[in-house]
Amino acid sequence: MTSEFDADTAISRVAAGAYRAEVSSRWNVADKPNGGYLLALALRAATAELPLPHPFTATAHYLRAPVPGPALLDVEVVRAGRTHATAEVRLLQEDTEVLRALTTFGDLGTLSGPTHVAAGPPDFPPVEECLTGRAAAMPDGTPVAIAERFDMAVHPDTLGWPRGQPTGSAQVGAWVRLVDGRDPDPLMLAMVVDALPPPVFDIGAAGWVPTIELTTHIRALPAPGWLRVWVTTRFLQGGYLEEDAEVWDSEGILVAQSRQLARLTGWTQQQH
Amino acid sequence: MTSEFDADTAISRVAAGAYRAEVSSRWNVADKPNGGYLLALALRAATAELPLPHPFTATAHYLRAPVPGPALLDVEVVRAGRTHATAEVRLLQEDTEVLRALTTFGDLGTLSGPTHVAAGPPDFPPVEECLTGRAAAMPDGTPVAIAERFDMAVHPDTLGWPRGQPTGSAQVGAWVRLVDGRDPDPLMLAMVVDALPPPVFDIGAAGWVPTIELTTHIRALPAPGWLRVWVTTRFLQGGYLEEDAEVWDSEGILVAQSRQLARLTGWTQQQH
Repeated sequence: MTSEFDADTAISRVAAGAYRAEVSSRWNVADKPNGGYLLALALRAATAELPLPHPFTATAHYLRAPVPGPALLDVEVVRAGRTHATAEVRLLQEDTEVLRALTTFGDLGTLSGPTHVAAGPPDFPPVEECLTGRAAAMPDGTPVAIAERFDMAVHPDTLGWPRGQPTGSAQVGAWVRLVDGRDPDPLMLAMVVDALPPPVFDIGAAGWVPTIELTTHIRALPAPGWLRVWVTTRFLQGGYLEEDAEVWDSEGILVAQSRQLARLTGWTQQQH
Repeated sequence: MTSEFDADTAISRVAAGAYRAEVSSRWNVADKPNGGYLLALALRAATAELPLPHPFTATAHYLRAPVPGPALLDVEVVRAGRTHATAEVRLLQEDTEVLRALTTFGDLGTLSGPTHVAAGPPDFPPVEECLTGRAAAMPDGTPVAIAERFDMAVHPDTLGWPRGQPTGSAQVGAWVRLVDGRDPDPLMLAMVVDALPPPVFDIGAAGWVPTIELTTHIRALPAPGWLRVWVTTRFLQGGYLEEDAEVWDSEGILVAQSRQLARLTGWTQQQH
């Protein structure tokens, strides 16, 4: 059986370097497809064109609001070397460019250089002591279809705002896996870095947090099973903020890092 | 008098969206122009084409080794909106693409949204208690021309390896200003995030650390005077590493954040 993620990132070749895809509404927040999901779709097209298998680094600039429905992916191979290969992907809907991505691929299965790691995974209670349940809608009733794509077990010190108790600290941590049991791989990681609710909501902000740019580094092939995802915002300045995500696999290895620049719009300070 | 940085990022228009530049050897490490300097040059060309003044986010993929000498900058305006404008820049030398960048611009002078900051600048001793002097060569004699472009005052707990005493922690912090007194601005910040020696050298690594991809967010207009720059590597995995830089201005405001993915090559473990 094809997993939801694989079905919703399927592409079909229509010409040299050109692919057709269907942007699914299953990864929506309100009526907007999630940005990480769109980048994963772009990376699927890059994978089809590049001689190396895995995205090492991928950046997307979000140009216009995407919609569920047909999309065209145009891939340009910028450089194809033996160790690294770079591509550009443009995602178009109704002849309008919605997203542009730059990505450099390599082979995570052949890394042989030195390893020296200065930080371990964040301290998480076991899954069964975390907060479970799928919040398929925001407190104001806005539907969040993407929440139904995951089993999530939220670190109890984070994500207080859905319970009316913002923690005051812009951090969200959760155990995460796809609800249909599909194990993580590099493309799934490129999506999951953007799958948690915005940490800024826990400092009392409400509004919309559209991503301007998202960059993800895939640092290792993930082991099967639960991921630990930790997302932090430290600097909300003049309405702009960064979201830094780290993803750790079930063996405690850092498998992805991401940072996005986003803008908080429609801000209303909540009472708390 | 034109500053070194402005002289070495000067461009001249040769056609619609096309600019000629001269890559200076003054920003070299060994015989290679610094990656942050090249990105600043690309952003100078983007500035000439976009209707908004400042890079909010910029990503460069380094495709081939650059050399000092003539370069052509090709700018494509991807989208020009009222609040954000996105461009792509290709830097070519001898008809070969050396760097490709994606950048989204805005106006840092008009930010009016909320501010909530969770971290202050790192704890630095005053300039006069830091380690000064310009290391214009590596211990092995490799020339480092870029070091002569700055006054630097290094945090004494960091950068032990040039003194034969690696600290064991992959962090470098320094007070930094341009040697000719030119004050920081967004383009200078896009260069300075990449101007310090690789933090990984302080865990006993020696070698070459070529950047694969560098992304910088400019978060505020910097005040005149000294910058505090702090660069950290936490994850060296299979020979690949991230370098995270934060830049704080003289008023203690975070003005830039960057992350790069780089590869440690020619690794030799040093005795210490």
